Amino acid sequence: MSDRPIVHHIPVCPFSQRLEILLALRGQPNAVEFRVVDITKPRDPALLAKTRGTTALPVLETVQGRILKESLVILRYLDETLEGQTLRRTDPAEHAVESLLIANEGPFTAAGYRYVMNQDRGQRSHFRDKLLEQYRALDAFLVHENPDGTWLFDDFGLAEAVFTPMFERFWFLDYYEGFELPDGGEYDRVRRWRDACMAHPAAQQVSEEQIVKVYYDYALGAGNGSLLPGRSVSSFAFTPHWQDRPWPPRDKYAGSASDRELGLVD
Amino acid sequence: MSDRPIVHHIPVCPFSQRLEILLALRGQPNAVEFRVVDITKPRDPALLAKTRGTTALPVLETVQGRILKESLVILRYLDETLEGQTLRRTDPAEHAVESLLIANEGPFTAAGYRYVMNQDRGQRSHFRDKLLEQYRALDAFLVHENPDGTWLFDDFGLAEAVFTPMFERFWFLDYYEGFELPDGGEYDRVRRWRDACMAHPAAQQVSEEQIVKVYYDYALGAGNGSLLPGRSVSSFAFTPHWQDRPWPPRDKYAGSASDRELGLVD
Repeated sequence: MSDRPIVHHIPVCPFSQRLEILLALRGQPNAVEFRVVDITKPRDPALLAKTRGTTALPVLETVQGRILKESLVILRYLDETLEGQTLRRTDPAEHAVESLLIANEGPFTAAGYRYVMNQDRGQRSHFRDKLLEQYRALDAFLVHENPDGTWLFDDFGLAEAVFTPMFERFWFLDYYEGFELPDGGEYDRVRRWRDACMAHPAAQQVSEEQIVKVYYDYALGAGNGSLLPGRSVSSFAFTPHWQDRPWPPRDKYAGSASDRELGLVD
Repeated sequence: MSDRPIVHHIPVCPFSQRLEILLALRGQPNAVEFRVVDITKPRDPALLAKTRGTTALPVLETVQGRILKESLVILRYLDETLEGQTLRRTDPAEHAVESLLIANEGPFTAAGYRYVMNQDRGQRSHFRDKLLEQYRALDAFLVHENPDGTWLFDDFGLAEAVFTPMFERFWFLDYYEGFELPDGGEYDRVRRWRDACMAHPAAQQVSEEQIVKVYYDYALGAGNGSLLPGRSVSSFAFTPHWQDRPWPPRDKYAGSASDRELGLVD
């Protein structure tokens, strides 16, 4: 039995980064023990037994051995149990408001991932429109709750911890789809929020270069460490380290670069 | 300004019944003011302005005039703000476990509603299988957490308040689809839970007769108060009162009974 909770995770996973952001904000980076899972290899049977067959990460084991899943459930659990002031708003109505904003994260995440994984050049504007719809919904919410501010309330909070890892993952859209938030009033409020979220000192666990390189296979339509035809190493592999690989080609619709071109084999 | 929160709702709505169950359990049925919305009529523009265009119910207005949506968000808000012991588990890990079970409610609800609204006789076993899959998932969860008990923990709690209204709505499946949970071990634990939930004194806001009559139009494929061809009155209409109407025909695949046959006009 461990003296602190164990989090099984993939280091670059946005759902895990939420927890890392919380720990950073609370100044307790070592309050949990992170154990790295290599999703390009078969899952350890001992971990699979603990999760009763599911493979989604992160997974938290409490000190008592209880298994908790679902990034948002784990985030709220740690927020309640870590020492110090919670990240969630103390006021119940304000907490309800942040929960309502957080309820948008599923559709927002899905829109971005479907867009990056799309392999049909003719569908690019369709997926772009779907993502912009999500950004407009966030903008309208923020304009209603806090029109002149930067954050949902007065500082980086629970909703920011939930969304920031997705804003950072969507660097893959900037690179592989040339995506930018359009100019214009209907995006100004969410742009201000997003930019502040990504610049926050507690949210610097990943870089654009890392995301672009590691998520290359997603841009080619292969998620969760699965292998593309003609390739023998996933872009999610731990070695060679992403810093030692070249930037991948931007044109995802031209087919996969080779393992060698991607710096995945010598 | 009201001296207590206002909940705009449809009396028979399962998402609102969760709140009524909470109020009943806490012995504070009048802690909120319920205002009835007739979904068979155009929405009041004043309410539509408050909800900024969305029509989903229930909606809660706090004493300060803040608008909260989403049944689960409102349920948690009331649980935190009503006087007395919260319904949620106090222990953070136990609360995480109930939140994980609650995360099943979306797919569970969707499976039951798709099944009742299906109009293709050839797809009946498909929709039945999809719902049974959801029941097995609940069963496995309960077996893992509390194999010998009745509830998720030791009494009717937050997860029970979330699921019970759905168990009761699914009376429409018993009636219109002849649905029963099959005998057999893989349903025993969830059957025990479901039966106890539905029998609980705090969860008696609706009856099988009421659900079967009011949800007739759902069984014919028309949701949310919309009108079927050849019909001029929705089964969700407040008058004639459901108690004054006959039981509808069970065979939903034979086409809609008339307003008169349903007792909706004299």
